[in-house]
Amino acid sequence: MKTADNGVDVEALREIRQALTDMPPAALFTWRATCAWLGGVHSRSTVETFHGACAEQAHRTPYSVEADHPGVFAATDNAATPVEIVLSALASCLTAGVAAIAQHRGVQLRSVTARVEGDMNLHGILGIDADVRNGFEAIRVGFDIDADATREEIAAIVAQSQKRSAVFDIITNPGNVKVALE
Amino acid sequence: MKTADNGVDVEALREIRQALTDMPPAALFTWRATCAWLGGVHSRSTVETFHGACAEQAHRTPYSVEADHPGVFAATDNAATPVEIVLSALASCLTAGVAAIAQHRGVQLRSVTARVEGDMNLHGILGIDADVRNGFEAIRVGFDIDADATREEIAAIVAQSQKRSAVFDIITNPGNVKVALE
Repeated sequence: MKTADNGVDVEALREIRQALTDMPPAALFTWRATCAWLGGVHSRSTVETFHGACAEQAHRTPYSVEADHPGVFAATDNAATPVEIVLSALASCLTAGVAAIAQHRGVQLRSVTARVEGDMNLHGILGIDADVRNGFEAIRVGFDIDADATREEIAAIVAQSQKRSAVFDIITNPGNVKVALE
Repeated sequence: MKTADNGVDVEALREIRQALTDMPPAALFTWRATCAWLGGVHSRSTVETFHGACAEQAHRTPYSVEADHPGVFAATDNAATPVEIVLSALASCLTAGVAAIAQHRGVQLRSVTARVEGDMNLHGILGIDADVRNGFEAIRVGFDIDADATREEIAAIVAQSQKRSAVFDIITNPGNVKVALE
């Protein structure tokens, strides 16, 4: 029997899951980002520390995500738009889930590509029509996966990834966001 | 009277708004991202083309967003997590709105910083407790803004940005996402 290796340490993940089951406060995480305005609608968000496992944690190094608007909106197009960044987060969250679940099920992945599309009617954000929402009216994610498994097994891995995806939940279910001036 | 210059061309934005009001199909945009698995839970999403203004559009150059999981999850920590990327997208969307609305109201910005935090109980994504959601239980955004305006005027700009933000809507209201195997 061949052993799948997708680069996911499922044994360590099982131990982490057990530890967080035994000690529920360790499972309470707070994720953070700090966004600096760079002029126009261009900004840079930096991610560095987070809280979890009952302690302050830090990434190996700070990571940044830039955002801007494109030329069709008379902007400088120095980066992806915030909504494209959301689509990227959704695709990456589902892809990470596919890799972890495939490993858990002993399925060797060869390649995974997720294509995401989101439809938006700008009459929402431009305040032209109060009946049009600001965000996406529909999002479609299509996976193209090459793996040592049947199409049915691969579809089941994708379905399980969706079921456990943080970003899928954030987008599909209502969230509680408070915005304030410090 | 001093003229505010936040790097936002409000005259061009007014013309775009009028054109999209006069020609509703031009306001129908589709945003896209393509995510490639890089091994483990590490991936790279690329944003390049989108549809809008009744034509295919492209960014000046492709932009990419990497995602990974940190060492506390036994992963390689080569990038921000997908949920931190969502927080970054929210912060950048609200910040872009602040810049555009301040310009529209003739308010000169000197600096804008948004600090975002999102609370998550990992008993959700780990499937330990079915009553815990996978995504954020609460998100807080705090703005620190230095501008030529009263605190009341600045608070009103932030409130209007929230009202018109695509990503705020995506996170706070339910969305329609279909995931499929191609």
